[in-house]
Amino acid sequence: MKNSFIRVPEGRQPQRWYNILADLPEGLPPEKESDTGSIARMERIRPRELTRQDRCMERWIDIPKKVLEKYERVGRGTPLMRAYALEEELDTPAEIYIKREDLLPTHSFKLNSAIAQAYYAKEQGIKTLVSESGAGQWGLALSYACSLFGIHNKFFWVRSSREQKTFRADWCNLLGAEIFDSPSLLTGTGRKALEEDAECPGSLGISIGEATEYTATHPGSAYVSGSNLPHVLLHQTIIGLETKEQLKAAGVKPDIMVACCGGGSNLGGFMNPFILDEEYKNTRFAAAESDAAPRLTKGSYRYDSADPLGITPLVMGYTLGRDYMPPVNHTGGLRQHNGSPVVGKLRHMGKLEAYSYSQEEIRSAGRLFLRLYGAVPAPESAHALKACMDLALEAKKNRQPLRLVMCLSGSGVLDMNAYKISG
Amino acid sequence: MKNSFIRVPEGRQPQRWYNILADLPEGLPPEKESDTGSIARMERIRPRELTRQDRCMERWIDIPKKVLEKYERVGRGTPLMRAYALEEELDTPAEIYIKREDLLPTHSFKLNSAIAQAYYAKEQGIKTLVSESGAGQWGLALSYACSLFGIHNKFFWVRSSREQKTFRADWCNLLGAEIFDSPSLLTGTGRKALEEDAECPGSLGISIGEATEYTATHPGSAYVSGSNLPHVLLHQTIIGLETKEQLKAAGVKPDIMVACCGGGSNLGGFMNPFILDEEYKNTRFAAAESDAAPRLTKGSYRYDSADPLGITPLVMGYTLGRDYMPPVNHTGGLRQHNGSPVVGKLRHMGKLEAYSYSQEEIRSAGRLFLRLYGAVPAPESAHALKACMDLALEAKKNRQPLRLVMCLSGSGVLDMNAYKISG
Repeated sequence: MKNSFIRVPEGRQPQRWYNILADLPEGLPPEKESDTGSIARMERIRPRELTRQDRCMERWIDIPKKVLEKYERVGRGTPLMRAYALEEELDTPAEIYIKREDLLPTHSFKLNSAIAQAYYAKEQGIKTLVSESGAGQWGLALSYACSLFGIHNKFFWVRSSREQKTFRADWCNLLGAEIFDSPSLLTGTGRKALEEDAECPGSLGISIGEATEYTATHPGSAYVSGSNLPHVLLHQTIIGLETKEQLKAAGVKPDIMVACCGGGSNLGGFMNPFILDEEYKNTRFAAAESDAAPRLTKGSYRYDSADPLGITPLVMGYTLGRDYMPPVNHTGGLRQHNGSPVVGKLRHMGKLEAYSYSQEEIRSAGRLFLRLYGAVPAPESAHALKACMDLALEAKKNRQPLRLVMCLSGSGVLDMNAYKISG
Repeated sequence: MKNSFIRVPEGRQPQRWYNILADLPEGLPPEKESDTGSIARMERIRPRELTRQDRCMERWIDIPKKVLEKYERVGRGTPLMRAYALEEELDTPAEIYIKREDLLPTHSFKLNSAIAQAYYAKEQGIKTLVSESGAGQWGLALSYACSLFGIHNKFFWVRSSREQKTFRADWCNLLGAEIFDSPSLLTGTGRKALEEDAECPGSLGISIGEATEYTATHPGSAYVSGSNLPHVLLHQTIIGLETKEQLKAAGVKPDIMVACCGGGSNLGGFMNPFILDEEYKNTRFAAAESDAAPRLTKGSYRYDSADPLGITPLVMGYTLGRDYMPPVNHTGGLRQHNGSPVVGKLRHMGKLEAYSYSQEEIRSAGRLFLRLYGAVPAPESAHALKACMDLALEAKKNRQPLRLVMCLSGSGVLDMNAYKISG
């Protein structure tokens, strides 16, 4: 019988993260100061090691032993699944391989960096980590990571999103996290937003503003982020490094790799170990984004801040402009106006294809996966599924074999509403 | 580094189910007719092969190839996890091994029998499977299994429970299931209940009445059950048979095995392959039940029907009486007044210890697991965790090594309310 689940072979579990900064031609364009004095400010409030990693030029960074232990505890390496049933359903000559990050206990890949960040904070003697969350996947991952290392966790959660995700909020609370609905009365940023609109539903930008301000005024605390930044992509390379071992074990060289792309840490973590590797020079790389925020397909490559308020430094990347307001949809993790500078650079270098999809398109893709595998993909992950299915159908039309490898970034069991409206 | 996840060794995935009926001394006491003509009636509406299996005396039954394929697709064998973190937290000399059925895509072990039952129904040309569900884990598993084999699935879901589990209901709907709130107007049983009380919240008994009546009046449909019966326990032995291979691979012989016990299919599936095996004659076996329905600890061993209305045949087992009304709590899967006749017989033979726990006790146990592992155990599974933790602490007090092996039957991500009230 066919065996769909490819494991990382015994003794091949990666012990180092891969730092793509060491291999990017001409390096990454440097951060620039926003008009709020952002560079020094962020440096002051972030755990030191994370800032160091953002500038580090070493190619390989040892994963600390305590982080490796926690990776093992949560079930890393995650399986790489040969999706026979999906291939059969699509009647395609393509081979489809899916990296199952949705199987991690808190339902998404976010845990890979949350564990690392909580570890470094603990080492530095930080008592409390402060952050923000949109859909709550990062908030939940950080809640668990902090509980693992005995650190307090407080985060500002976009109110309108938190109200949709009550089970996820309960889960965070049970793990000991303190959640503030954002905008809150705890910070100037929050109070200002509420003065302007007492019913303000919140936004990721306001949450970032609140979290950074709160951190700056609370000694013993530090501020952390769940995507975009080089250190986050660095920690996430555990995904791609495992995938490489698994593909080698299966004797498969991918023709194309696919991931969804919002802030870019899933895509970067999955693809960075391949994308500049000479051995994979014939592999194509594709980003699947939401047409609610089509930065890679329709944005421009220029300096912009990662948040709408200009709190964070200016970085070079693909952006829709910091005042871009995405239409409301269910893919909270893909709604930023810009994203990772590393991903932007790779796109600008011509290394990365990009496709954007509507909510209706990804809903159908997600529902097909659900019917075949029983599991609910996160709406964000369903973008990668949609791209993957399209490519597999193209291969069918062309009657050509194609080895497709994609990352399923998370589970959508707590985002079920995204699939309910008939697609 | 320690490796916590023990896999079924290559080539050792079980290909047969174990039928304990072949080894029970004097066999199982025969079913008896209730006053409703139940034996022939159930035989008429159930898929034939399932009735045959209930009376089969062959020790080993080949798992059909198509069932094995689906088992593989959903990720069987599930891992057996050495719970180092829990051992460390409890500071116990005990070794704790946890069989992770919660990792199946629909969140529980119920899938093991749902897949088998849908397969046999398909083989017989049945178009629609009808059932009932309490907490919804069986309903969800059956929804997915039916979708896998292209069969319609309709089930009567206790209304008060369905209203608590909206995400699980959405999940079933997305898999194509048709859910009827029970009591419904579709059957005489339902109409009668609603006449007596228009606000009737429903009960498992009423749902069984509705499902069997609906099946009897709808040609092309058949009725299936998710627990209690010998064929359900038979299919579930995949859990115990895998665990046996995993323990052998790890060189571990259990001192005690623990599972939660409601209808008894998780416990039977997990323990039956060990409990009469001469090789495990020194192993103890323990059932963890809810004090809301303490049939094994406080019930009596006698003939009773599995449902409160006397629709199903009388079986010999531990019962609290068919009009026993359990207090409302969050452990929907453990609230029956009686359970599996096989489990009853094993208990009566003195093979099975039993412990009962309050909601508060299991809540603390579940929350500790959640904090250590990130994952939310089903409230039912938390009963097994509680028993396991108590035994590990006893071993600590006695300063004795103890090899504890338990089954974590399901995930409680959609039962979060069970953990919310501070314990």
